[in-house]
Amino acid sequence: MMATINGNICQSNATQMVGPPMPWFGMDIGGTLVKLVYFEPTDSSPDEIDSELETIKRIRHYLKRNAAYGKTGKRDVYLQMDNCCINGRYGTLHFIRFPTSEMSVFIKLAKSKGIAQLASTVCATGGGAFKFEADFKKQVNLELHKFDELDSLIHGIHYIEAYNPQECYYLNDPLNSNKCSKSPYDFSHPYPFLVVNIGSGVSILAVYSPDKYKRVSGSSLGGGTFLGLCSLLTGCETFEDAIQLAANGDSTKVDKLVRDIYGGDYPKFQLSGDIVASRSGRLSFNLLIKFLFIKFLFI
Amino acid sequence: MMATINGNICQSNATQMVGPPMPWFGMDIGGTLVKLVYFEPTDSSPDEIDSELETIKRIRHYLKRNAAYGKTGKRDVYLQMDNCCINGRYGTLHFIRFPTSEMSVFIKLAKSKGIAQLASTVCATGGGAFKFEADFKKQVNLELHKFDELDSLIHGIHYIEAYNPQECYYLNDPLNSNKCSKSPYDFSHPYPFLVVNIGSGVSILAVYSPDKYKRVSGSSLGGGTFLGLCSLLTGCETFEDAIQLAANGDSTKVDKLVRDIYGGDYPKFQLSGDIVASRSGRLSFNLLIKFLFIKFLFI
Repeated sequence: MMATINGNICQSNATQMVGPPMPWFGMDIGGTLVKLVYFEPTDSSPDEIDSELETIKRIRHYLKRNAAYGKTGKRDVYLQMDNCCINGRYGTLHFIRFPTSEMSVFIKLAKSKGIAQLASTVCATGGGAFKFEADFKKQVNLELHKFDELDSLIHGIHYIEAYNPQECYYLNDPLNSNKCSKSPYDFSHPYPFLVVNIGSGVSILAVYSPDKYKRVSGSSLGGGTFLGLCSLLTGCETFEDAIQLAANGDSTKVDKLVRDIYGGDYPKFQLSGDIVASRSGRLSFNLLIKFLFIKFLFI
Repeated sequence: MMATINGNICQSNATQMVGPPMPWFGMDIGGTLVKLVYFEPTDSSPDEIDSELETIKRIRHYLKRNAAYGKTGKRDVYLQMDNCCINGRYGTLHFIRFPTSEMSVFIKLAKSKGIAQLASTVCATGGGAFKFEADFKKQVNLELHKFDELDSLIHGIHYIEAYNPQECYYLNDPLNSNKCSKSPYDFSHPYPFLVVNIGSGVSILAVYSPDKYKRVSGSSLGGGTFLGLCSLLTGCETFEDAIQLAANGDSTKVDKLVRDIYGGDYPKFQLSGDIVASRSGRLSFNLLIKFLFIKFLFI
């Protein structure tokens, strides 16, 4: 088998050991979530499988058998990428995540699965690669090979795009829920382009080539703001719970629309009455109390 | 007395009646607040004062005697502009505001003060000028002369700048609370400039000349979002209450800083550890419950 990505020839040859010793993990330790990616080789020769360490087998079986780990760890099966070529090996990329606040639980789990005896290395990005570096070394004997998160993000976008041409898409008719549909974005001449990376906060990058980019802006209103406010307002704990609550709710009851202010459209600036003028602008503690009181009367 | 503003000569002459009949009011009826501006002439001749209608005297005395009207109306005395020239008349501009949700109370008050008998007109901007137009006509016989709010905003900026050269300023050392100070901004060659107008929502305008501008962008995250979320999270009712609570609080307890993620600075992109990475990113219902529980134990 042979494939080319970004000029590198992917030569799959299980007998020829390439890259660092298995298992291959990558981690992005963000402000809210840890994203763990695990490469499962699918081109191993029978000899290689035989000589595989017991610990590696145990880790692979544990990760693959489950889609949930503990209370908060999840494997996003729908993100899984098959037939990937990395370091000249073919295999499957598995995507796992858990809250950064559970890092100590994760380190204990890794220890109990025997990671400490492998004395291996893990490539790691994100602030947590700095913050938790000493803990990893001390508790599971793991060296974190630190890479910058934004460098890795840009390389990752190019990698994903080369292997999954459907991954980069845009929405047709995004505001029309009946007509809204995905279309693949033609990435053959993308430069320059902007990347808006929404994590706990937001970074905005201008990308000029596969290796040249600049962080041009950012915002502290990001996923952490959304989840923090949702958690305090509704008691939900996860992003999925918040999205589920939102799907069952009616945003026009909390958002102030152009028509709530104008009584209709604001035609001079082509602002339709249905456009949100002020997100959460109708929220009021007094109205909430009145609403709960009325609800209570009708129970 | 003579002054020039935007090419118009302001010739104060109390015996020569210019402009529409008094009283002169202007209103901006926004999504959250109504901003009412009242022009009190200070150049009236004795004859003019004698012939003034009783209703006009009553309105002026009521507005000037108080700085608070009912439960929610306020006159911002610190905004007051003296020696203004409008329509060839000299006088004082008074600034009053109340929540748009109290509009029906305001209309009743205006009726009780005899506005209905004046059959006057009021210049009005904002969405409420459209939404409440029929109510004003029916209940207090007032015609709303509607002007576009963004047109008025741009004219207002030029007017204020011409009369109050200290009004347009910037902050030196804004992040250093000891050194932070105001400096007047030299507005002699301002074009092109951006106006970020934060109301319930946000409009961003590019201004090319006193009469030429474009609404280039906007955001639905604005003052309404801030007040709505504050109200639901703290029970506060007004912007002032929210600001007071914030002044007594410690934002680092709710915001996630770069150092909370990186354990320190993120030097590659010159992001200091003290910078907010994720506004409200530390909020968590579970942490709140734990905090309240611990607080309860120590009561």
